Amino acid sequence: MVGVYNHPEAAKICYLALYAMQHRGQESAGIASHDGKRLHLHKGQGLVSDVFAPADLETLPGSRAIGHVRYSTTGSSTVHNAQPLRANYRGGHIAVAHNGNLTNADELAKRLEASGAIFQSTTDSELLVHLLAQNRSEDFVEALRASLKQVRGAYSITMLRDSEMIVFKDPLGFRPLCMGKLRNGGYIVASESCALDIAGAQFLREIKPGEAVLFRGDDVDKFQLLQAQEQHFCVFELIYYSRPDSIAAGGSSIYKFRKRLGEEMAREHPVEADVVIAVPDSSNPAAAGYAAASGIPLETGLIRSHYVGRTFIQPTQDLRDFGAKMKYNPVREVLKDRRVVVVDDSIVRGTTAKKIVAMIRDSGAREVHFRVSAPPWKHPCFYGIDTPDDDDLLANQMSIEEMARWMGVDSLGFISLEGLMNAMPKTLGYCTTCFTGNYPEGRPRRNTKLMNADGVTTAQDHIAAGVWTPGE
Amino acid sequence: MVGVYNHPEAAKICYLALYAMQHRGQESAGIASHDGKRLHLHKGQGLVSDVFAPADLETLPGSRAIGHVRYSTTGSSTVHNAQPLRANYRGGHIAVAHNGNLTNADELAKRLEASGAIFQSTTDSELLVHLLAQNRSEDFVEALRASLKQVRGAYSITMLRDSEMIVFKDPLGFRPLCMGKLRNGGYIVASESCALDIAGAQFLREIKPGEAVLFRGDDVDKFQLLQAQEQHFCVFELIYYSRPDSIAAGGSSIYKFRKRLGEEMAREHPVEADVVIAVPDSSNPAAAGYAAASGIPLETGLIRSHYVGRTFIQPTQDLRDFGAKMKYNPVREVLKDRRVVVVDDSIVRGTTAKKIVAMIRDSGAREVHFRVSAPPWKHPCFYGIDTPDDDDLLANQMSIEEMARWMGVDSLGFISLEGLMNAMPKTLGYCTTCFTGNYPEGRPRRNTKLMNADGVTTAQDHIAAGVWTPGE
Amino acid sequence: MVGVYNHPEAAKICYLALYAMQHRGQESAGIASHDGKRLHLHKGQGLVSDVFAPADLETLPGSRAIGHVRYSTTGSSTVHNAQPLRANYRGGHIAVAHNGNLTNADELAKRLEASGAIFQSTTDSELLVHLLAQNRSEDFVEALRASLKQVRGAYSITMLRDSEMIVFKDPLGFRPLCMGKLRNGGYIVASESCALDIAGAQFLREIKPGEAVLFRGDDVDKFQLLQAQEQHFCVFELIYYSRPDSIAAGGSSIYKFRKRLGEEMAREHPVEADVVIAVPDSSNPAAAGYAAASGIPLETGLIRSHYVGRTFIQPTQDLRDFGAKMKYNPVREVLKDRRVVVVDDSIVRGTTAKKIVAMIRDSGAREVHFRVSAPPWKHPCFYGIDTPDDDDLLANQMSIEEMARWMGVDSLGFISLEGLMNAMPKTLGYCTTCFTGNYPEGRPRRNTKLMNADGVTTAQDHIAAGVWTPGE
Amino acid sequence: MVGVYNHPEAAKICYLALYAMQHRGQESAGIASHDGKRLHLHKGQGLVSDVFAPADLETLPGSRAIGHVRYSTTGSSTVHNAQPLRANYRGGHIAVAHNGNLTNADELAKRLEASGAIFQSTTDSELLVHLLAQNRSEDFVEALRASLKQVRGAYSITMLRDSEMIVFKDPLGFRPLCMGKLRNGGYIVASESCALDIAGAQFLREIKPGEAVLFRGDDVDKFQLLQAQEQHFCVFELIYYSRPDSIAAGGSSIYKFRKRLGEEMAREHPVEADVVIAVPDSSNPAAAGYAAASGIPLETGLIRSHYVGRTFIQPTQDLRDFGAKMKYNPVREVLKDRRVVVVDDSIVRGTTAKKIVAMIRDSGAREVHFRVSAPPWKHPCFYGIDTPDDDDLLANQMSIEEMARWMGVDSLGFISLEGLMNAMPKTLGYCTTCFTGNYPEGRPRRNTKLMNADGVTTAQDHIAAGVWTPGE
Repeated sequence: MVGVYNHPEAAKICYLALYAMQHRGQESAGIASHDGKRLHLHKGQGLVSDVFAPADLETLPGSRAIGHVRYSTTGSSTVHNAQPLRANYRGGHIAVAHNGNLTNADELAKRLEASGAIFQSTTDSELLVHLLAQNRSEDFVEALRASLKQVRGAYSITMLRDSEMIVFKDPLGFRPLCMGKLRNGGYIVASESCALDIAGAQFLREIKPGEAVLFRGDDVDKFQLLQAQEQHFCVFELIYYSRPDSIAAGGSSIYKFRKRLGEEMAREHPVEADVVIAVPDSSNPAAAGYAAASGIPLETGLIRSHYVGRTFIQPTQDLRDFGAKMKYNPVREVLKDRRVVVVDDSIVRGTTAKKIVAMIRDSGAREVHFRVSAPPWKHPCFYGIDTPDDDDLLANQMSIEEMARWMGVDSLGFISLEGLMNAMPKTLGYCTTCFTGNYPEGRPRRNTKLMNADGVTTAQDHIAAGVWTPGE
Repeated sequence: MVGVYNHPEAAKICYLALYAMQHRGQESAGIASHDGKRLHLHKGQGLVSDVFAPADLETLPGSRAIGHVRYSTTGSSTVHNAQPLRANYRGGHIAVAHNGNLTNADELAKRLEASGAIFQSTTDSELLVHLLAQNRSEDFVEALRASLKQVRGAYSITMLRDSEMIVFKDPLGFRPLCMGKLRNGGYIVASESCALDIAGAQFLREIKPGEAVLFRGDDVDKFQLLQAQEQHFCVFELIYYSRPDSIAAGGSSIYKFRKRLGEEMAREHPVEADVVIAVPDSSNPAAAGYAAASGIPLETGLIRSHYVGRTFIQPTQDLRDFGAKMKYNPVREVLKDRRVVVVDDSIVRGTTAKKIVAMIRDSGAREVHFRVSAPPWKHPCFYGIDTPDDDDLLANQMSIEEMARWMGVDSLGFISLEGLMNAMPKTLGYCTTCFTGNYPEGRPRRNTKLMNADGVTTAQDHIAAGVWTPGE
Repeated sequence: MVGVYNHPEAAKICYLALYAMQHRGQESAGIASHDGKRLHLHKGQGLVSDVFAPADLETLPGSRAIGHVRYSTTGSSTVHNAQPLRANYRGGHIAVAHNGNLTNADELAKRLEASGAIFQSTTDSELLVHLLAQNRSEDFVEALRASLKQVRGAYSITMLRDSEMIVFKDPLGFRPLCMGKLRNGGYIVASESCALDIAGAQFLREIKPGEAVLFRGDDVDKFQLLQAQEQHFCVFELIYYSRPDSIAAGGSSIYKFRKRLGEEMAREHPVEADVVIAVPDSSNPAAAGYAAASGIPLETGLIRSHYVGRTFIQPTQDLRDFGAKMKYNPVREVLKDRRVVVVDDSIVRGTTAKKIVAMIRDSGAREVHFRVSAPPWKHPCFYGIDTPDDDDLLANQMSIEEMARWMGVDSLGFISLEGLMNAMPKTLGYCTTCFTGNYPEGRPRRNTKLMNADGVTTAQDHIAAGVWTPGE
Repeated sequence: MVGVYNHPEAAKICYLALYAMQHRGQESAGIASHDGKRLHLHKGQGLVSDVFAPADLETLPGSRAIGHVRYSTTGSSTVHNAQPLRANYRGGHIAVAHNGNLTNADELAKRLEASGAIFQSTTDSELLVHLLAQNRSEDFVEALRASLKQVRGAYSITMLRDSEMIVFKDPLGFRPLCMGKLRNGGYIVASESCALDIAGAQFLREIKPGEAVLFRGDDVDKFQLLQAQEQHFCVFELIYYSRPDSIAAGGSSIYKFRKRLGEEMAREHPVEADVVIAVPDSSNPAAAGYAAASGIPLETGLIRSHYVGRTFIQPTQDLRDFGAKMKYNPVREVLKDRRVVVVDDSIVRGTTAKKIVAMIRDSGAREVHFRVSAPPWKHPCFYGIDTPDDDDLLANQMSIEEMARWMGVDSLGFISLEGLMNAMPKTLGYCTTCFTGNYPEGRPRRNTKLMNADGVTTAQDHIAAGVWTPGE
């Protein structure tokens, strides 16, 4: 998610920023711009480079723009659910990009339907626009505040209106959002600081829980839109999701933090071994940390193909199991006859980890010791990270010993929650619900997730039955 | 517009029907189907054959379906405005296809906005769904009736809901809608009878002003949804818009009617000449009638390319004026040294007619007499035919004499309104507002037309500022 | 096929010309241009408007260009077979567009293979380039003459080389080729005069059998490349294939000629009837002639959809037989209770004709009398018209009486060969082999046809086993 | 390049293998298969995943298949130059995939032209097919041997004929080619062993210089097609080009070798520094080696975006220099106030290296020491690696000192040729021409390179003037 204000090439900067944040969503991409007269929108299914042809950026004039990349959840992969959302209402035309998930969407949807609302998408983000439209206040900020008071869950949002752009975070501050200054004096807000880098912008600071920044004319008003609560910054942004060259949590390097996790693991789960290898690319820093702290040499034991994820073949016969191999290939000489420590950054379902272990053993490794730079993931996330149900989370179903046996490893170690928190930058409070099950507002009802899982087929403009209809 | 009820291949029949009615809209096409559990939708920009690949029809299961083709108005050529519209609301999921134009859209939009509605498209058709959603009645037909009472203008509509399909016409019955029986016992409704022919259906009858037909389970309930008023069936459907093999106005052949117009013109505007030619293809029947009544031989003086309308070239230099030639080419031997009567079915801006006249003169014609099988078109239509503003209607700006001089013809004759009405089937009342300026409910405010003219560029998913914002 | 010489927008004129001649080939289209330094080529599968996007014409600079549209024969629908062909050889770079068919292709292919030639396409046109490449003469025209002496069959060809364009016809002059002067003084050659019209060119004359025109610098040299033989101009160009607004056979109007055929038929096969109808659009002139000569009124009894040929649907159940209806729909009121004369311009397999007759009877016609403005088509063409094998030609398999019974008509009349020849312009000699079986050079061996029927699937760049391998 | 013999899913295995070797060519991809009756071919521009849709593999039946990916050279990016090439000639149908470059292409082309050959592509690979076609021997292997005796340069080739597949290497063995056994008993040959891994095949051995393997029926005949000469295996395959998980040069791990290069560099060019970083991904192993041997810690100082290379934007204003940032982003905390050793695997033009250095300095590095795990690249390659002309090779134009100054580094060290050769597996002889200028057969004339540089625009089917015309 990105917003650019007061730059003559606002849409192009959004494009570059989305490109830098492509890892945050490969399902769809979109940019809305405003040229003072009209709101322009272009969005579609696919990668940023697929959705935007050169001519498309030309159709997005204006000095302010917002953009979004969405990631692939189970369903709802339709162009109608791509963001930014656009709507016309009493207050004019508005475009909205939303990172996060509302947890009381069911309840809101029922209430809005009763009052006569009609829905075009199956995203929770649309609900917020309805709340805004039904508010009677003439003051936009007041209407927004009143609307948000009805909403629960995680949201970092950018909105583009006729003459202004507003960005804000929910009161618990689940998801990241930072702000930078462009070389020409304009502003950029983005989910990650790597988007500021590509635009040559100077990092200013992160947006705080409940805070809003309103860009209007030449003014930049920062104020508390909602009363901040204890921060619950998503710990997985640091562990896995954000790019390592981004900074977060009060200006800390994510790369450095991940390396510290590896060091902590080496202390918590030492083992005698010949070589440390990472599951590339995201676990590289943690593996480096483990190697440094343990003194065991770090080698490249697995090569990752960077063309992965773009194939379709369904072979029969001899070609079974080629899937994991399309992504990873072992470097045999590194593994043969060695005692190998494999460092990964998380275990969700465990299926890929199991295949990697088999691959390493097939390469002749004598022992395989698996180390995970996150605590056991036991509880689904309702705040913006796509996770399977409880039943599909390996750590929810097995003890660590059972997991080790099932994966076929000689030892298995997860970093402790305490160790994790010790390694974390102390500037923020964190959401660790996925490890603890302590949902900050109580565990949301499961059907809320249907918001993003309506079983729609993925063809362009393919739209099937919706989501929150009470009777369904 | 088409609806199919109780046929295992409902979507395929819709496809064929839209194909047969492609002349009614080349801008976008769409089909929604319902399989008892879900509402499915596929729509896009372009011809029916462009929008639907073989696999797309497979994604539209169910025994009931509705479809639509929209024509190219000045703007709003976006996939969001393609029909059928789909929405979720309190009453469930609904798909709507609408032929016609609402005349109080501005007023409705303002009222709906005030009550908190948000709009996704810039079509007047969306307004109707909002009215329906805001209605409190538990009875769908009552809610629909109450909603329609707030609406003015022209509409023939098909709606698809979970278990039922409903079709209805506005109280003045502007636009066509007929009903047929499929061979398997199911039903089809369509704008034109040629769509029934291609599906092998038996023509039953036309829907009457204010009438609705509700298909539910095995029942077909016909009833007066709104009180009928004096019918204003669009006279241009007969003169120009419908296919000549369709029947309308109580079962009359459109081909025969157009031929009668030619005969009437021969009586009203006789001339001594050597040959009668048509501006193909739509004027062929009128030309045949003129020839038959006048005794002047009918020949093919202009050949029309059927690949026309699919080019883009912008040549400089010597290639000017190739545009009209890409559509029409004269048959010189028919025209050379002859006194030629050219029969056309309407003059809107007059630019094409002028070029045709020049082409005929270049081929060596001695005299050119132009005959038009419609009265002078002086007033814009607000009821579903795309027309330019008053200033761009040639007959609004010039007398017949001035037109003749400007076009470069030796004589110019339009059928009289009286002659036209004499030739019309007597079964219906007609809307002749485009000739008389007598708007049945008073002339609508011009900005209503903005509904279909929001200046949006035509790229897929390209959406710009909307329409009915009061301040615009 | 078209060639343009000495015009700054040569490729654009080719584009327009191909557009006007789209009826001559819908399978593939291509243009090659030369800018004095390089030969440029763009070609692909599909209609002219599909193959050429705006930017594509920009990639074809230069003041000389040639182009081609190919029609769909049974196989070989691959981009490798699209024309113009391009090749590099000792004489430089050359592009070739060929209308017609060589009849000794098998023999040539075997001989060339033996001498070491390799083939990239499965078209007979490539053979000619090989002959040229193997010729030792330094003089291009001499090399061409020597090469053509080895070739038999039908060819009208345009070739583009570095500094020159050459066009020529085979010694029997099977296929059309005419020449015109552009407004700027440049030249255009094309298969049909309608291509000259769209370019605003002045018709000069047709190329004669065995004649060549060589455009070099500012020179236009016309000379006899090969000794002319008795002309065998394809009679089907006049009966059916060419556009009615083209002129052929010494400047005669094709429309007029077709009308004379109708008049002749009325004399040869009179019948008492109420109405004459055409199978539109190609039979319209003949129907008009029949009506004029017989005094029976001409009406439009069948409406032809101009979107036809672009669908794919394969319906089961009730939708059988929709195929013919997608192309034609009857005007019932014209046919009901009438004795109908249907005029068509040819019967090949007879299947469409049979369906049309059924359609007319279903509409309530009392009698159906079928009249064909060509003699019975009994023998396959080897000179450029795509025809089925002997066994699939209805007239080859049945007597006229049997055909009438099979088609379900009350009477069936073909124009006599004598009547046809009487109606023909007397300026040329004609090829009537398809009616008589008198092949001018003896009947070619059937496998020659394989040249254009290699069973290749139609996917872009899909190429399968070839053609003239001796052992096959 | 890949070939599969005797596997029911031969084309699918080729697809997987090409996917694994995508780094060897992103320009075009293609597969040819033979089902005993016909040769099938599918090829196109783009990545393997772009060129092959699921249905395309279905059109490639048969138990033997060959495939190729080509990389982007300056020109000739046309579908006609995509491989495999297909041709028909006296010997039947043949498909050819060629990795490498012929050095006497000009001379061969002239000779072939003189004898009457015509060329369809602008690749040197086509020349070989011509030589084969012109050979009179009835024995295919004899004809091939005689043809190859006329050819000089680098080639690893797979050929598919009716009933057989043959693979072979040039006598100096420039380019890699290895052979493996599929689980079902069939065979696979491929440029790199990573392609064998993805297919689950067992590595057998590398093909030797001048050796051929002929697969016919159930026979696998290995024989010396041409007399082997001193091997000149491309050293750049080991340094940079091959995947690190491939093995080469007698079964050596490429990863291990690259690490040894880093160690050697640490010995040759030691420096006092705080951190070693790699230019990811290809330099990671060398950087690890440098760190290990020097004792300086290895960190991740640059993050590489894996979506790079797929954008087009041309920004003005503030967005200059975003290009390098789209590919690399620094991790500031790793670089700030540090003395940094940057390890790269080669310097060609030097422009990217210069930008990386600036990026590192901007991040606050105190010193930047650049180490290159290849000797200075001074001479263009004519044997299959795409290189710029002498003038564009930085090391050809500047001394090491000048380069250091131009790049803005505190020190610059290249591995010595001696050091490189010490680190190389001793099993093979190597081509080091790019460092030494000792071309094994004398330096080829420059115009040979035109073969792959004909200035053709990249549009599909866009073909311009060719290549080896003598006069050009």
